[in-house]
Amino acid sequence: MTHSATTDKRNQYHKTRMERKKAQIDASIARAQDEKGVLLVITGNGKGKSTSAFGMVARALGHGLNVGVCQFIKSRTDTGEEAFFSAHPNCEWHVLGDGFTWDTQNREQDIRTSRKGWEVAMGMLTNPRYDLVVLDELTYLLSYDYLDQDTVLDALLARPENQHLVVTGRSALAELRDIADTVSEIRDEKHAYTAGIKAQKGVDY
Amino acid sequence: MTHSATTDKRNQYHKTRMERKKAQIDASIARAQDEKGVLLVITGNGKGKSTSAFGMVARALGHGLNVGVCQFIKSRTDTGEEAFFSAHPNCEWHVLGDGFTWDTQNREQDIRTSRKGWEVAMGMLTNPRYDLVVLDELTYLLSYDYLDQDTVLDALLARPENQHLVVTGRSALAELRDIADTVSEIRDEKHAYTAGIKAQKGVDY
Repeated sequence: MTHSATTDKRNQYHKTRMERKKAQIDASIARAQDEKGVLLVITGNGKGKSTSAFGMVARALGHGLNVGVCQFIKSRTDTGEEAFFSAHPNCEWHVLGDGFTWDTQNREQDIRTSRKGWEVAMGMLTNPRYDLVVLDELTYLLSYDYLDQDTVLDALLARPENQHLVVTGRSALAELRDIADTVSEIRDEKHAYTAGIKAQKGVDY
Repeated sequence: MTHSATTDKRNQYHKTRMERKKAQIDASIARAQDEKGVLLVITGNGKGKSTSAFGMVARALGHGLNVGVCQFIKSRTDTGEEAFFSAHPNCEWHVLGDGFTWDTQNREQDIRTSRKGWEVAMGMLTNPRYDLVVLDELTYLLSYDYLDQDTVLDALLARPENQHLVVTGRSALAELRDIADTVSEIRDEKHAYTAGIKAQKGVDY
């Protein structure tokens, strides 16, 4: 077979395979017709959970939607994401944390901080004005038992019907995964940090 | 033991554990001192790869950095992310795709489109003006063999020393993972789409 005949054949196989694939994908699109607010959980120990939520914030703002963000653990207010999004008129941004639990080393203080933060989140979860709500690092408040699990899960489910909600953080509880529409688990295959590269502005904060 | 004594004990254990954890974390921070441009690969079949890259775009812009984005597969220009970021003076945004390979069904056309897109990317990868470059869905161009693997990998490594680079897409090649500083694999545990919920504005595009 000449080179050109081989190429032609490869191109033809490609076309046939892709026709079949397109038919499958078109059929799934036709089946997927429901429009409603979705609950997304982005968990796992890899890099990209919060940034993934922030990417959805950008998408939503790009479509003219209203967004509310609660950051539950972080206390620093010098992050790129806050500087960038909090200036946007359609985005409400709250830094509600006291630092990670190993920074505070004080469980009762963490619980008080968590409860105060949760009230801010409840203001969003009961208000249909917010098209997208991000509860960044909420999972820790559940796994450390700083908030009552049933109260939180019920509130997530009782939010306005068309409100999208993104919850991030490691070790999402099974009960939270159960009520979610989409769950992504980010696995840390390799991290610059463990190779001695420090946290980089614009990438890590 | 009274309830209050139990609580006191739990709080004290918590404090001791968290002191130990803080010491470990402070030691890793002290070890991680290198500052340099990092190469991040966000791969896997789960939702959140591109949005994670867009979250880093927001972070970088929030710090006043310059960003360049190439979208290799997407051809649609009605996405929230493009509307949002392409309006920003420090962000250059290129939609370089023709749709997924099952949309075009034409391998030679895909190769031509990929090569044209790659030239745009090369303009960024050779210019230290860009602090962060995102090559969204580049992995497909390598796994479908639309671009020469060695040429691409060499160019990614030869970029300016302080330039951060994010590559997204499913099925990242082992060779690409090898040269990356950070690799996150996003596993699709559950997806709204397969439950019959269609792609949602502000979340999926």
